[in-house]
Amino acid sequence: MKNKFYKYIQELQNSITYKLEEIDGDAKFREDIWKREEGGGGKTRVIENGAVFEKGGVNISSVYGLLATEMQHYFKVGDVNFYACGLSLVIHPKSPMVPTVHANFRYFEIYNKTGEKIDEWFGGGLDLTPHYLFDEDAVHFHTVCKKACDSHNSTFYNRFKEQCDKYFWNSHRKEARGVGGLFFDYCRANEEMSIEDWYDFVTEVGDHFLESYIPIIEKRKHLTYTEANRTWQEIRRGRYAEFNLVYDKGTLFGLKTNGRIESILMSLPPHVQWVYNHQPDENSEEEKLLMVLAHPKDWL
Amino acid sequence: MKNKFYKYIQELQNSITYKLEEIDGDAKFREDIWKREEGGGGKTRVIENGAVFEKGGVNISSVYGLLATEMQHYFKVGDVNFYACGLSLVIHPKSPMVPTVHANFRYFEIYNKTGEKIDEWFGGGLDLTPHYLFDEDAVHFHTVCKKACDSHNSTFYNRFKEQCDKYFWNSHRKEARGVGGLFFDYCRANEEMSIEDWYDFVTEVGDHFLESYIPIIEKRKHLTYTEANRTWQEIRRGRYAEFNLVYDKGTLFGLKTNGRIESILMSLPPHVQWVYNHQPDENSEEEKLLMVLAHPKDWL
Repeated sequence: MKNKFYKYIQELQNSITYKLEEIDGDAKFREDIWKREEGGGGKTRVIENGAVFEKGGVNISSVYGLLATEMQHYFKVGDVNFYACGLSLVIHPKSPMVPTVHANFRYFEIYNKTGEKIDEWFGGGLDLTPHYLFDEDAVHFHTVCKKACDSHNSTFYNRFKEQCDKYFWNSHRKEARGVGGLFFDYCRANEEMSIEDWYDFVTEVGDHFLESYIPIIEKRKHLTYTEANRTWQEIRRGRYAEFNLVYDKGTLFGLKTNGRIESILMSLPPHVQWVYNHQPDENSEEEKLLMVLAHPKDWL
Repeated sequence: MKNKFYKYIQELQNSITYKLEEIDGDAKFREDIWKREEGGGGKTRVIENGAVFEKGGVNISSVYGLLATEMQHYFKVGDVNFYACGLSLVIHPKSPMVPTVHANFRYFEIYNKTGEKIDEWFGGGLDLTPHYLFDEDAVHFHTVCKKACDSHNSTFYNRFKEQCDKYFWNSHRKEARGVGGLFFDYCRANEEMSIEDWYDFVTEVGDHFLESYIPIIEKRKHLTYTEANRTWQEIRRGRYAEFNLVYDKGTLFGLKTNGRIESILMSLPPHVQWVYNHQPDENSEEEKLLMVLAHPKDWL
């Protein structure tokens, strides 16, 4: 399974970066291949200062070894060996009218001291973070999320949509990071789903990423915007940085378990502002966004 | 003691904001008075878009009530009441040639269920974060720090300088936040120092803040700089934001114990950049800074 899934995320990285370069039409991804001292490594692809994408990363990694103490506590296991691989992407477009997007697809294995596999699971999801809210974009994104879920289990979309709203909650700001999407974790073999079924589900979600996002870029990338729109985008990106640095478990684990810092923190936005006590004008587009973020809604 | 110290930090807030306004010559601090639902409140003063200061806050607060669960674990106490007051300041100058500075002076009391005071201590310190390193500025800052310490105890400067280097260590970047200063905590009455002696020490450090920082501003504020210098400043501010959001205990407690978010996060820099895998040129001023931050040095 681990080889099969790693092969999948390699191909997914290729198809996503190929398509994003085509859309950008100007900048190309640069690739950095890195090794992890304790075992494994990754392939980081970053695009910067493009016509459409100001900064984005589409990274894969495959790491293994002794599970770090901090991760032992987190996974509620003892002194074990692990294998983990995954694809992580975050795209920060230049235009404030084009939303930021994040997706992650990951697979874990845990082994006992004799090398026997004692646990395995999938996790992942995708979520959209607009700076200006076009309801139809959120509806499109969620429609594609639901389509990817429905052929596997009719309850998945609702469940994983709710988990997404819960996970990407910036609690000190009392607001969601964005308009959500899907979030699932610890997807283990059970009575209904074998691990192969989970593979089929996770890869189906992965296969739908471009369909969830590209039409939104195409629709919004030519909209004009003002300096004030751009300032608002940078302020909202500050919230994105706050979420990733304070709450995001993937980021914190990476930082605390000797991951490659530049690959982990490629998720941080290129240009960010923190303005003291910024409040949008009443009945503005900016206020409209905040009201939706304060009360995650059902888009479908 | 709590009234005496709160009176002190009120006066210190006045004298510091008065002097900084004079130096800026253009912008004024705005004041926001806030109440905390669970008890107490504060006075936040923020300056933005000045001639010298791009963003800065000099805040005081005085809060009390039931100690939040997360703080109970941290202080290793049970279900108790507390009182805390303090002054916190962070100043982000506009010019990359003028360093960022932070200072904090705080006092805690803990009470048992019958309202008896069972513990009290002071904490605080100050530290300097240059974007371009002028050795003589770091030496000046540390000289004033040492002067404030020496009349109280000849070991304080070395001890609190070392604690500062340790506390402001950005471990995922393997670098110090800046060139350090002083950091002290849990300063309780003991054989050598009564709580009044600690009050005298902490207020003496507070009284030296302006002397530690103002001459550096005066010396550097008229230096010319390029767009590239400014970009470097914004990249370094990214590290400042990383430290405050990932490691700073004051920030995290504030966020997790229902503090006033805008007062806590006034510490975050106004304009920030995250550039993928940025490396300064060899033998540049930027590289020189990084080499010092990787190995905190003895400035005196």
